[in-house]
Amino acid sequence: MTEIVDATRAAYFVSDSTGVTAETLGNALLANFPGFRFLKHTIPFVDTDAEARAVVASIDKDAAAGREPLLFITVKQAALRSILGASEATVIDLLAGHLTELEQALGVTASEQLGAYHGLGDTDRYFARMRAVEYAIEHDDGQSSRALDQADVVLIAPSRCGKTPTTMYLALQHGLRVANYPLTDDDFPTEGLPRSVAKYGARCFGLTTTPLRLSQVRHERRPSSRYSSLEQCTIELRRAEDLYRRNRVPFLNSSTKSVEEMSAVIMQTMKLRA
Amino acid sequence: MTEIVDATRAAYFVSDSTGVTAETLGNALLANFPGFRFLKHTIPFVDTDAEARAVVASIDKDAAAGREPLLFITVKQAALRSILGASEATVIDLLAGHLTELEQALGVTASEQLGAYHGLGDTDRYFARMRAVEYAIEHDDGQSSRALDQADVVLIAPSRCGKTPTTMYLALQHGLRVANYPLTDDDFPTEGLPRSVAKYGARCFGLTTTPLRLSQVRHERRPSSRYSSLEQCTIELRRAEDLYRRNRVPFLNSSTKSVEEMSAVIMQTMKLRA
Repeated sequence: MTEIVDATRAAYFVSDSTGVTAETLGNALLANFPGFRFLKHTIPFVDTDAEARAVVASIDKDAAAGREPLLFITVKQAALRSILGASEATVIDLLAGHLTELEQALGVTASEQLGAYHGLGDTDRYFARMRAVEYAIEHDDGQSSRALDQADVVLIAPSRCGKTPTTMYLALQHGLRVANYPLTDDDFPTEGLPRSVAKYGARCFGLTTTPLRLSQVRHERRPSSRYSSLEQCTIELRRAEDLYRRNRVPFLNSSTKSVEEMSAVIMQTMKLRA
Repeated sequence: MTEIVDATRAAYFVSDSTGVTAETLGNALLANFPGFRFLKHTIPFVDTDAEARAVVASIDKDAAAGREPLLFITVKQAALRSILGASEATVIDLLAGHLTELEQALGVTASEQLGAYHGLGDTDRYFARMRAVEYAIEHDDGQSSRALDQADVVLIAPSRCGKTPTTMYLALQHGLRVANYPLTDDDFPTEGLPRSVAKYGARCFGLTTTPLRLSQVRHERRPSSRYSSLEQCTIELRRAEDLYRRNRVPFLNSSTKSVEEMSAVIMQTMKLRA
């Protein structure tokens, strides 16, 4: 049972870089305390004394207002950490402790350059991700089959089952080349996969959802149409799932999974992890 | 100076959920040890004893091969953590210690449900992100101005300055509605912003890059064309930057910044943080 505390606390995610790490891990940690409301502030690029002091001023205002602040930091310079540490917040240092553990395990001291994991970093990998986004846009919704032979994954599903967001996530976060192809009524007279993707059957991954959810989502786009009717959605999903099974295309249900979860399953199933 | 150690170490990112947190923070930490090569393995959805034992077997193989494994974990069940802890790896627990710190600060124990920050979680926020991706696709590259009035940001830039990946990142990660509009030769005879976006000047943000970088990127698409010539790229970028300055459109240079960094700057500049 969730303990209902019904208190509002300020939560700061402060970073000398983008704040992506502080925000990601900080939120993951806070998700374990559902009884609280958190007033969240992400403050990236804090890399001077003056900026650190401005953050402290803001935190101390929250403290004075009774919002007992939590401060999650990913800040490499010890001088800045010590300014932030003098605030009226409970400091959760997401890097320093683990860096010390790693220094001991590896037997060297951590590099003193500013951490920039979310910077350009490994530029080859970075540009591969950017090209993957271009690839995904070009091959979204069956629009092009120009470079379908280069796809790492071909996502197939009826319209509005979550193909596009999943495609974009795999491209942007993991640099995978993902094409997606909509299954329409025209694709179902035959037993096999649609002609344009049949050659790439081993790279196909299917999505499905529940008829009710699909009908709701389609209704937002075309209210009270055949396209969004529960009957039509039920038929399309049943046909799609039959198609996946007949052709041994792995598939999953997008109604209960986030794009992050679907992407993790897809990479695991298609053995696309390094 | 970077200490060159030239040793290969195995690094495991193991999670009972998607592995996004373990991978993000684990990589951020490892980025501080540039002298090592890390052989990385991400293993999501480890939520049974048997799966944890399979991970241990794989780790111990790496250990036997002299790759002294590091093991980053985000696993909530103590029983699974203890199985993983018995491996031959140095364990960096990314959650447990911080959860204890938070329990002390908040005066309650953490919820025992499996952490699923990257699950559907807050479904309103999740569906807003998914709708933002659809919005971004519809309004990519000036293709539509249907719902331009609903844009949180309108990114403007000459072709191939990084509009699309930045747009997708802001949509997917932050649920922002971002339209993007290419600046072409036709947009420069006048002093003001292009007609389609002029009404939304206060929401415009510009991108630029270096002529050399732009020419290289365009060359990949259309080799040896006027479009990709250094001369044309120089002219277009100078005109774009003039346009931004004249119209007080904030802008930044995408040649030295990642999409994560640009997104953080854009949200900060446009005051789009919660």
